[in-house]
Parts: sequence; C-alpha cells; structure tokens
Amino acid sequence: MIKTDILIIGAGPTGLFAVFEAGLLQLKCHLIDALPQAGGQCSEIYPKKPIYDIPGFPEVLAGDLVSNLMEQIKPFQPGFTLGERAQTIEKQSDGSFIVTTNKGTKHQAPIVAIAGGLGSFEPRKPLLENLSKYEDNGVAYMIKDPEVYRNKKVIIAGGGDSALDWSIFLADVASEVTLVHRRNEFRGALDSVEKVRHLKNQGKINLITPAEIIGLQGKDTLEAVVIQKTGGEEIVLSVDDYIPLFGLSPKLGPIGDWGLEIEKNAIKVDNTLDYQTNIPGIYAIGDVNTYPGKLKLILCGFHEATLMCQSAYQRIFPEKRYVMKYTTVGGVTGFDGTKKEAEKSVVKSIE
Amino acid sequence: MIKTDILIIGAGPTGLFAVFEAGLLQLKCHLIDALPQAGGQCSEIYPKKPIYDIPGFPEVLAGDLVSNLMEQIKPFQPGFTLGERAQTIEKQSDGSFIVTTNKGTKHQAPIVAIAGGLGSFEPRKPLLENLSKYEDNGVAYMIKDPEVYRNKKVIIAGGGDSALDWSIFLADVASEVTLVHRRNEFRGALDSVEKVRHLKNQGKINLITPAEIIGLQGKDTLEAVVIQKTGGEEIVLSVDDYIPLFGLSPKLGPIGDWGLEIEKNAIKVDNTLDYQTNIPGIYAIGDVNTYPGKLKLILCGFHEATLMCQSAYQRIFPEKRYVMKYTTVGGVTGFDGTKKEAEKSVVKSIE
Ligand SMILES: Cc1cc2nc3c(=O)[nH]c(=O)nc-3n(C[C@H](O)[C@H](O)[C@H](O)COP(=O)(O)OP(=O)(O)OC[C@H]3O[C@@H](n4cnc5c(N)ncnc54)[C@H](O)[C@@H]3O)c2cc1C
Ligand SMILES: Cc1cc2nc3c(=O)[nH]c(=O)nc-3n(C[C@H](O)[C@H](O)[C@H](O)COP(=O)(O)OP(=O)(O)OC[C@H]3O[C@@H](n4cnc5c(N)ncnc54)[C@H](O)[C@@H]3O)c2cc1C
Repeated sequence: MIKTDILIIGAGPTGLFAVFEAGLLQLKCHLIDALPQAGGQCSEIYPKKPIYDIPGFPEVLAGDLVSNLMEQIKPFQPGFTLGERAQTIEKQSDGSFIVTTNKGTKHQAPIVAIAGGLGSFEPRKPLLENLSKYEDNGVAYMIKDPEVYRNKKVIIAGGGDSALDWSIFLADVASEVTLVHRRNEFRGALDSVEKVRHLKNQGKINLITPAEIIGLQGKDTLEAVVIQKTGGEEIVLSVDDYIPLFGLSPKLGPIGDWGLEIEKNAIKVDNTLDYQTNIPGIYAIGDVNTYPGKLKLILCGFHEATLMCQSAYQRIFPEKRYVMKYTTVGGVTGFDGTKKEAEKSVVKSIE
Repeated sequence: MIKTDILIIGAGPTGLFAVFEAGLLQLKCHLIDALPQAGGQCSEIYPKKPIYDIPGFPEVLAGDLVSNLMEQIKPFQPGFTLGERAQTIEKQSDGSFIVTTNKGTKHQAPIVAIAGGLGSFEPRKPLLENLSKYEDNGVAYMIKDPEVYRNKKVIIAGGGDSALDWSIFLADVASEVTLVHRRNEFRGALDSVEKVRHLKNQGKINLITPAEIIGLQGKDTLEAVVIQKTGGEEIVLSVDDYIPLFGLSPKLGPIGDWGLEIEKNAIKVDNTLDYQTNIPGIYAIGDVNTYPGKLKLILCGFHEATLMCQSAYQRIFPEKRYVMKYTTVGGVTGFDGTKKEAEKSVVKSIE
C-alpha cells in the first residue's frame, strides 16, 4: 500500500504543479497516470509545439514546460505510479480513500485530487484476432522503457509523430526496426519525416508502405506478424515486438462511476472556494473539472491546484491556522533537505 | 481623451497579463499606474529577488518576470499612462466609463479592470516646510526619467535599496550626487552597499551620514538644501534636485470611493464567474480583489485576468459567440502585424 497526503490522479501540468503547492504546505503527494510519462496532453499530444499563453513565457515548448515543472517539484519528491489507470476508489472508516489501479496497485490518502484532464489516455487498438493474448507478451501500445527493446526485432505501425519518433529512437536500440503504415504519406514534423527517410536509406529502418498488419502469430508470446501490402502480397515477418501507435485518446473512464457529479463529461466542482467535488475530500482540478465560466487552460489548472491545496491542508489539519508565506520571503524547503531562499539584505555602514 | 477597449488600472503582473488575454480576443488595453514603471510590487519592492512559485519557473527574479510579461504582451501594443493615479470614474450614458487621473489625463472604455494590487504606490514624504512648493520644481519622490538629472547637482536621501541603487545609477549621469541618511548603516543588497562604498572612495558619490535634511531653499525652484549632521553642524548645499527615497507604500486611495463593495481593504468580486464587482462593467483582479478563499498570489491574478477577459468580451460583443482556440493551435496575431505560430505538421511520403 502506497500512503501519501494527497493522491493525485493525473500527472499532467495541473497534477504536477499541485505537488509544488502541496509541498509548500509540507504535504506529500503521489501521482498515478495511465501514461508511461508525466506531462499529460503536453507530453503525449504536442511535446514539440510551442505554447504562447503560459504567463511569463512568450513562448515555451509543451515538453519544456513539463520539464520545468518536474524540476520545480523535485524538492518535494513526489511518488509516481505510471502506466496504470486509477480504477476504483473506496472510502475507509477513518475518512481516507483507497484507490486501486487496473494493475492492482493500491494507494491510500486522506485527500484525492483528480487532475485527470480529458481522461485517462487509452490507446486506439488495431482490430486483430488474438490481440489481447499477446498484450504484454509482445504487443504494447505505449513505450514505457525503450531498453526493453534492446537487440529485439521490433515492428511499429502508424503514420503520425509517435510512430516516426519511436522508429527513429529505436533504430539505435533494437536490432531491427520495421515501420508499417497503410499509406505512403506520413503526418508529422518535417524534421521527423526527413530523419526516417534518412534512416531508411541507410538501411536502419525497414519501411513497408502502404501496408497493414493483419495477423499475429506465436505460441505464448508474439513470434511473427502477417503484413498485407495494399493490393499486393502478404509477408510473414518474424518479430519479437509489435507496437501499434495509432494514437491515444482520453476517456474519463472509471472515474465516471465514482459517484461524482458529472456534467459535459467533466466533474462538477465548487468554484466558489476550493474546487471540491460533491464528495468531501475529493477535489477535481484542471481540464477534468467544470464550473460556470470554466476554461480548459493550463494556467487555470495552476490556480485551481493552488486553492485546492489550501483547502486540503485545512481538511488534514483542522486545528492548524495556516499563514501563507511568500516563497520569496520564506524560501522553499524541500523534503530532500534542500533549501532555496532569496539572498538576505545586509545592514552595513559605509565608511 | 484616451480610448480603449479595456482600461486597466494597475500595471502589476496581473494587469500586464490581462493585456495578453485581451489581445487574444482582439481587445485593446491601456494601463494606468501611479508608478513610473510597469511591474507593480515586483518592480517596486523586490525586482532583484527570486520568486519560486511561478508555475514553470523553478526560480525567476521578480524583475525578470516583469520583463518576460512585457515581452509577451508586446504584440498587443498596450498604451501606458505612468506616474499618474486614477482618481475619479464617471459612468457615461452609453455605458462606458471615463477615468481621470490626478494629473487630469482622461481615459474612456466600456470595461474597467482594476488590477490595483495593494493600492496605488504613494511615496512616504519627509516632514519639511515648503515641501509642496518644490514638488515637481526640484523635489521628486520617484525617478521617472533619469535623463532629467543629466549634469544636475542631485541630493538623494534614504537608507534602502532605492537610495543606494539610484545613487549608483545617477553617479554616471548627474554632475554631483550626494547621499544623505540618518544612520551610518544602509539596508540593501550587499552588492549595492559595496558599489556605493566604492563610488564614495572614488569621489563619485558624496556621502553624508548620519544626517538629515531639515530645510529647503529657493525662490521658485529648489536651489539649496539645509543638512543637519546628527549632533553636529548644519551645512547648506546648493543643489538642483532633492530626491527623498523613503519608500513607497500602497494605498487603496480614491478607488475606495468609487461605490465598489469593499471588504478588508479589498474589492469584493463574484468569483463564481468572472471577478466582476458590484458595478457591472468594472472588474477587480489580482491582489486588489477579495472572495472566499482568496490568495494574494501572482499565479492567481493570471487566472483571474483570463476569466475576466472572457466576460469583458461577452459584455462588449453580446451577440458574438467566442470559441476559444488554443494558442498552440491558433497562434498569436499581434496588433503590430506580427504572427507567431507553431510549425505545421507536414504530410509527406517517404520514398
Ligand atoms: C494540441 C493542443 C494544444 C493545446 N494548446 C494549449 C495552449 O496553447 N494553452 C493552454 O493553456 N492549453 C493548451 N492545451 C490544453 C492543455 O494541454 C490542457 O489544458 C492541459 O494539458 C490540462 O492539464 P491537466 O493536467 O488538467 O490534464 P492533462 O494534461 O489532460 O493530464 C491528465 C492526465 O491524467 C491522466 N488520467 C486521467 N484519468 C486517469 C485515470 N483514471 N488513471 C490514471 N491516469 C489518468 C491522463 O492519462 C493524463 O495524462 C492544448 C491541448 C492540445 C491537445
Ligand atoms: C517582498 C514580497 C515578496 C513576494 N513574493 C511573492 C511570491 O513569492 N509569490 C507570489 O505569488 N507573490 C509574491 N508577492 C506578492 C506579489 O508581488 C503580488 O501578489 C503581485 O504583485 C500582485 O500583482 P497585482 O498586479 O495584482 O498588483 P501589484 O503588483 O500590487 O500592482 C498594482 C499596481 O496598481 C497600481 N495602482 C493601484 N491603484 C492605482 C490607482 N488608483 N492609480 C494608478 N495606479 C494604481 C499600483 O501603483 C501598482 O503598481 C510578494 C510580495 C512582496 C511585497
């Protein structure tokens, strides 16, 4: 059982910044995310695109914003359960909650902050017989740890940035990379398309287009795939791993059944005070919530996370009176023993 | 008469960011501030100190945050009325407002956004007979344009960062700089104290401590000051300018009499929707407002400014239905003809 003060569901920008604000109040956080990496939509959908409306950044790449947030929260040592979906929640007699993931990992905390964005990112799966048999036995829809593919024969399917970028990355890791797409045209950053062309010409990526994978073979684990070239022959290719990258789409999913008030596929919250849901102790912040005038913007998630943490603090320590201190004045004291603070003024005579 | 879409009172971080959000909606802004520069508390009180809780910045100097915001809003060409205090407001029959400053400058807009922070920064003045006679005739409490002092004989009084930093700056501009403080000890950044010591030893700053200025002389404009050395002689020093820098303190001031609901020295707003005050068309955002759970933090001001602009847009264009577009997707189109946008994906075949 993982225990923490605030259990955050969703490691997008909102969930990440909540770790910082909680940390200032000396509250510890643990985050669960269905994706293998932190950053939510910013990391998954548009890491290399610029955002122009983060206050103080005339321009910042979505991926860089996430790195900055990770750096900012580092002193508060958040825990992460990645690649797992929060599935069920049970209220305990002591008022705390136990949240269990689809892989059975259990987490307990007095406060749950749902920062689930548009929902848990779930892969679009190809329609193939036997697919589920090979899941985690040679078929994966996201890449958690590329080292798993070291010296393996890998086939990737897809025509977007993920398929291009992972083909490029794995060309240096796997013993063989095949990229299959049902069209000749790829849609992605010009740079990525050019790199794949280059690696193909060097013989480092084996490109098969237009084509589709129509069958999977193997006793217990995946051993080969059947590729159908459009209007042409069928090829049986021996592979260790098949990674269909057809995009991830967010689904509110199990959270929709937690007894929370839902409106327009989002969780209704009380915006007059603290973004709490209809279940005391459960908050919803960022894209996942709704209230009159709601804007699904990153900067709004930051504000909501901040007010939520104040309320969570009051729930955990009803007797304590918290007096806010500016970070400039009080500094930042990490759980890792680090301390950042402004240089103090000196009082000095000048002779 | 200066006319604009949103008249913003207060050019602190909240007011500045409002310009950006308004600009995304193609609304123009003009800002009024009592201070000679933009940035509010960040510029006036702690420009060289780090802030740790701006989302995405593990650390940023307050002055740099302001520069970044100025850079971010540049495409939207805000107007500024600086060094003047918004004094009166009058509602017009067409629903717009006219705001007049203490210097008589008039501004008209359908929307007024008060981003006045802790109030208009007003100088602490020395208690001297005739003081008001010389105001703007040799006596100034803030430095709007240092070039005014080129080749002048200047005397500065004060013992803090402003007195130190302006003495250093003007040592290169004025023909003579005298710094007077009632103690021998100065309170400021170590670096500034050391620089003043150095300039004094070079004969570029004339330091008189402990001492006070007890009299002002001159027919129409200031010609000399009388300096009393503590427990010692009186000196009459011929000067062109006397700049007492005893700090600026914020006062809600005239805004308190505009018929707005005030609570705890702040303006009550409707936080369930848009941070509007009890007077439709007048909003209050940032440190100047209050609502249940309010936190006087910069990041909260950013959120409030953003929601306020959406509401202002609806008031100005009641028939239009605004569909929010992410900056990443829609780019930023400045009033100055500039356009920032993300590189588009390409659709390309790989041979
Ligand atoms: C192309 C594009 C451009 C954009 N441009 C801008 C822009 O310019 N400015 C701007 O402010 N915003 C922009 N946005 C929106 C911005 O990305 C979102 O507002 C932001 O990501 C929301 O952050 P969040 O942390 O609330 O949620 P998300 O980023 O959506 O993160 C939520 C996370 O929660 C996880 N999750 C959900 N449910 C579960 C569960 N049950 N178990 C485990 N994990 C779960 C998801 O997997 C996800 O990783 C853009 C979005 C897109 C798609
Ligand atoms: C030492 C110190 C450290 C701080 N550290 C942090 C921190 O770490 N993190 C954080 O989030 N916040 C911090 N703050 C608070 C932060 O600076 C404020 O929240 C922020 O400046 C508020 O921005 P604002 O734009 O709402 O108002 P302000 O910055 O106060 O700006 C308001 C402006 O309005 C002007 N004004 C008001 N009335 C009038 C009028 N009638 N006419 C003309 N002009 C008028 C004022 O002159 C002023 O320039 C700190 C503050 C101080 C003093």
